[in-house]
Amino acid sequence: MGKNLAIKILEAHLVEGELVPGKEIAIRIDHTLLQDATGTMAILEFMAMGVERAKVELAAQYIDHNLLQTDNRNADDHVFLMTAAQKFGIHLSKPGNGVSHQVHLERFGVPGKVMLGADSHTPTAAGLSMLAIGAGGMDVAMAMAGHPFHLSCPKIMGVKLIGQLQPWVSGKDVILEMLRRHTVKGGVGKIIEYYGPGVETLSATDRGTIGNMGAELGATTSVFPSDGRTREFLESQGRGDCWQPFAADADATYDEYDEIDLSQVVPLIACPSSPDNVVRVKDVEGIKVDQVIVGSSVNSSFRDLMTVCRILDGRRVAPQLSFNINPGSRQVLENVADRGGLMSLLLAGAQVHQPGCLGCIGMGQAPGTNQVSLRTFPRNFPGRSGTKDDKVYLCSPETAAAAGLFGVITDPRKLSDMMPWPNVQNPERYVVDDSSVIYPIEDTSGVEIVTGPNIVPFPDFEPLPEDLQAEVIIKVEDNISTDTIMPAGNKVLPLRSNIPAISQFVFGQIDQEFPQRAQAKGNGVVVAGENYGQGSSREHAALAPRYLGIRVKLAKSFARIHKANLINFGILPLIFKDPADYDLIVQGDVLTFNGLRRQVAEGATEIPVRIGDREIKTILQVSERERQDLLAGGTLNHVKKGNL
Amino acid sequence: MGKNLAIKILEAHLVEGELVPGKEIAIRIDHTLLQDATGTMAILEFMAMGVERAKVELAAQYIDHNLLQTDNRNADDHVFLMTAAQKFGIHLSKPGNGVSHQVHLERFGVPGKVMLGADSHTPTAAGLSMLAIGAGGMDVAMAMAGHPFHLSCPKIMGVKLIGQLQPWVSGKDVILEMLRRHTVKGGVGKIIEYYGPGVETLSATDRGTIGNMGAELGATTSVFPSDGRTREFLESQGRGDCWQPFAADADATYDEYDEIDLSQVVPLIACPSSPDNVVRVKDVEGIKVDQVIVGSSVNSSFRDLMTVCRILDGRRVAPQLSFNINPGSRQVLENVADRGGLMSLLLAGAQVHQPGCLGCIGMGQAPGTNQVSLRTFPRNFPGRSGTKDDKVYLCSPETAAAAGLFGVITDPRKLSDMMPWPNVQNPERYVVDDSSVIYPIEDTSGVEIVTGPNIVPFPDFEPLPEDLQAEVIIKVEDNISTDTIMPAGNKVLPLRSNIPAISQFVFGQIDQEFPQRAQAKGNGVVVAGENYGQGSSREHAALAPRYLGIRVKLAKSFARIHKANLINFGILPLIFKDPADYDLIVQGDVLTFNGLRRQVAEGATEIPVRIGDREIKTILQVSERERQDLLAGGTLNHVKKGNL
Repeated sequence: MGKNLAIKILEAHLVEGELVPGKEIAIRIDHTLLQDATGTMAILEFMAMGVERAKVELAAQYIDHNLLQTDNRNADDHVFLMTAAQKFGIHLSKPGNGVSHQVHLERFGVPGKVMLGADSHTPTAAGLSMLAIGAGGMDVAMAMAGHPFHLSCPKIMGVKLIGQLQPWVSGKDVILEMLRRHTVKGGVGKIIEYYGPGVETLSATDRGTIGNMGAELGATTSVFPSDGRTREFLESQGRGDCWQPFAADADATYDEYDEIDLSQVVPLIACPSSPDNVVRVKDVEGIKVDQVIVGSSVNSSFRDLMTVCRILDGRRVAPQLSFNINPGSRQVLENVADRGGLMSLLLAGAQVHQPGCLGCIGMGQAPGTNQVSLRTFPRNFPGRSGTKDDKVYLCSPETAAAAGLFGVITDPRKLSDMMPWPNVQNPERYVVDDSSVIYPIEDTSGVEIVTGPNIVPFPDFEPLPEDLQAEVIIKVEDNISTDTIMPAGNKVLPLRSNIPAISQFVFGQIDQEFPQRAQAKGNGVVVAGENYGQGSSREHAALAPRYLGIRVKLAKSFARIHKANLINFGILPLIFKDPADYDLIVQGDVLTFNGLRRQVAEGATEIPVRIGDREIKTILQVSERERQDLLAGGTLNHVKKGNL
Repeated sequence: MGKNLAIKILEAHLVEGELVPGKEIAIRIDHTLLQDATGTMAILEFMAMGVERAKVELAAQYIDHNLLQTDNRNADDHVFLMTAAQKFGIHLSKPGNGVSHQVHLERFGVPGKVMLGADSHTPTAAGLSMLAIGAGGMDVAMAMAGHPFHLSCPKIMGVKLIGQLQPWVSGKDVILEMLRRHTVKGGVGKIIEYYGPGVETLSATDRGTIGNMGAELGATTSVFPSDGRTREFLESQGRGDCWQPFAADADATYDEYDEIDLSQVVPLIACPSSPDNVVRVKDVEGIKVDQVIVGSSVNSSFRDLMTVCRILDGRRVAPQLSFNINPGSRQVLENVADRGGLMSLLLAGAQVHQPGCLGCIGMGQAPGTNQVSLRTFPRNFPGRSGTKDDKVYLCSPETAAAAGLFGVITDPRKLSDMMPWPNVQNPERYVVDDSSVIYPIEDTSGVEIVTGPNIVPFPDFEPLPEDLQAEVIIKVEDNISTDTIMPAGNKVLPLRSNIPAISQFVFGQIDQEFPQRAQAKGNGVVVAGENYGQGSSREHAALAPRYLGIRVKLAKSFARIHKANLINFGILPLIFKDPADYDLIVQGDVLTFNGLRRQVAEGATEIPVRIGDREIKTILQVSERERQDLLAGGTLNHVKKGNL
């Protein structure tokens, strides 16, 4: 029986366990990726581990999130990261050099390698046939310290691609089709592997788009073969020597199957406020648009931006509309400028911003009250834009450009009446500019890490107690994202290295009294529905609640990265054995766990909980290693004890 | 006796009074300029006046300050301004089109016209031989409503320019030389008129630079003749038909004189934290620089940016340094891009931002703790950058570029060793793009003004009472700027149309309890030293304190615009008759004014004040019209009564 590519890469990196879905495995990590919003804390954690130099083939620290600098704090974090990166042998991509995902594709990605990144969109590197997984900062810090990465072995879902995309349809529409079919929970516990004859019709950057938003399916990651298109992209970057072929065996099998006929994919759009709220663009045509943004985490490549340039060339965006371009990287901007695209954008009335995440993470670009915003971003969770009750749609660059011209949502195929399909290809040879990368040096003895006043030491957490009484501080619904638990945006992101301060914003979007209530109670529980903690990898969605006294999160199910983050900071991730029990709990209920420490230590998978005079059963699905982390009060306590 | 140019323009616009320095005059306004930070309130004030359409030759509303959009509020203000501008016959320059001053030079300025702008750097239009005066939003709203502008007739200071600037020296160094000689108080009560053979060696944009920072001298405005260079600039913009010659008579006289030999001007730099803290660049060479920013309010023209492009072309900025470009306008960016300059900047490692004010008004780009920032901006008042205890230097683009290359402050003349002097000239014909200007329309009956939830109606103020007891809520030093009274930056600027909310930030940089203390006392007094309220024209520095209960400001002297704003909102601007009395007052003292209303009504210029068992004398220097405003509790009360 032939092997699929995901299993081949996992096998080549397997350190512990066996490749049986659901069993814990440990894999060797080749590359690590940090960005600044997660990276300050991850570096503090790495420093707490006492390791002198990153122990992976390539460690990269990007500064792409917190670029607004509305006070000293962003700039202080930048200096901290620049000096720490130099100290620990980490590649540093300076502010303005671009979004981690795009830059890693361009300059560092290598086919067949495994990458762990403290950013949920790390799987963009699927575009280069990497197995790239998003994780919490603590997990990435551990990997940088030389530890393997532990995860529950995923199922492999094979998605066969046949046919070829029609004009005006692109990679974004493919992943939106996946989201339409499978929802934001459809990929949980799975790696999505694309194969079949349609693969070679997609460029590396289109594959990157599909990999990026695999995160929105809840997937562990996505993977594409390394083929001629991969080689073509690496050669265009002057990195052809990194290329190696990787593919599934011809007779490979998968745990699950799906098939997409690319020729049947039509322009799609995710309506507010979930990436799986997908309809045909045709079905929502005519809705007035106030703001368009192309770029950021996804669809910020040369092809994406140049397609918009060609569509807008010699034309003007609708007068009342704000049309914005967030290039994925300095390189993308330079190549677009080099080919005259930038002038097309400017003359069309576009606002061209420096490369970076910007509005994608709520750092600026918030729409006005009741405004409709079309974005090529990966996410439109409620309020993520920075505006309450926002109306954010997700679409392809083609659809975004069409809306820009007409001022209303428009099927981009209508552009055929005005112009030929631009059919932009990535350059055969990019203008390459690594001037904004600071490379590791050998002798780091003279490097001093600069720690600004906003960088507060990691808090101490106590171990798991024998008995626990804890009150339900909040009860929330299904599909709560980490954006709801721990908002981003310019008010909150500068506090990412200051846990006492950032914890005051936990659940701020839905319940501003949560922090005070939690702190007043001492011990607390969060009760949640399905797919709790989806979205961004931010570990602050676990760390800050823990700081406020949350000891247990009890949900119908958890998103993968968030569950790992909970364990890393000593919060018990319990699942309702009977989901109907969810309905019986209300805020203010006191939950009593007797002999909790003993049960966790002894490997119990079923943990009984008393609520008043009732008792319900909960499930603890964690590995032996994770039990030790929980008992210690978190991974760092566990590591500090030398018990790893 | 021949007339100087300032007097000629004033004469041509004189509506009331006579041109005797110190006497109140009223002049006709041709152009009005609003930006978004001052404009939302000014438009609300205009609306309160009940006028249907702006009654000036050209009214312009720019959106250039609040571009970060970290929540709905900036975008809500933009829509408000866009729809209000359309309703009232005002030209609207969209976000991303550029800084008001640069765009007005390019597209709207006309020699010999008088402009009133709700921005202290309005005098940039001196570059086109306009008499352009900064004022509070209320004054601009009044002008838009068809009223003449009242001011105390200034003295005219003639500055004779001879010789020609040496290579690597530019307009910025000339105005820094003026600041070195005359300090931030040296221009108070004066119009500065440049004349002499050196004038024709300066381009319109270099003159604009000199006019812009005349605001830093405290001058009412600055003016240059309209000559061949003016014509050349207008023709390069396709607006040659606007040109007319204007000049002083050959035998003109001035109230004061100064002379600058341009050939003797060397590269200068203003050290932290005042624009008049000027030394030779040579004297501070070698100081390590962390951040450089070129552009924003001043030095953001084609010549300025292209000079930086030429210096950086084929080179790279120092690795640890953040090098930023804030183009003055979309047009500047397009022309720089069109001539290949943008690629030079990008390849050198510069971060190129969308055109706008940005860090110049503390909207982003704040330096880190203890970092040194070199900026071509006009101001470096403490904390204006957004960072407490900031170290901001002001310099020319040439000096900024040299620091970018070397990473330390460097006399730009040293660049001669590496390259020929670029000697950049403005284009003979600019690429012109007005796609981001929304022009007035005739029939505005269908236009609806969109008012977002952050736009709060103008507060009601009561008239001046007969007797007043008020406590000294704060006592401050000399040269307090409006940045200290009413901070800008991303936290505060979005509240410019919400007085109750913004008032909570008054004096926030130096005394965070001021708002509560003031509100608790009911009536309050601010005691200050010399030149109180210098800097930005923001009327919120008067309006928000008034909202908090401040009824009197008692100072050694006032900056012009701030004094006018105080009167507009019914705060008595009193001056110590004996400056030594300043030393006898402490915070918490209660000041008693008996028969205050009667005295103001009767034209008293000396107002006695009881403090405990002492009595001191204060001076009220206001016109009869201003007395009526003060009695009514502010200009809007006065206007609403129909008493104007």
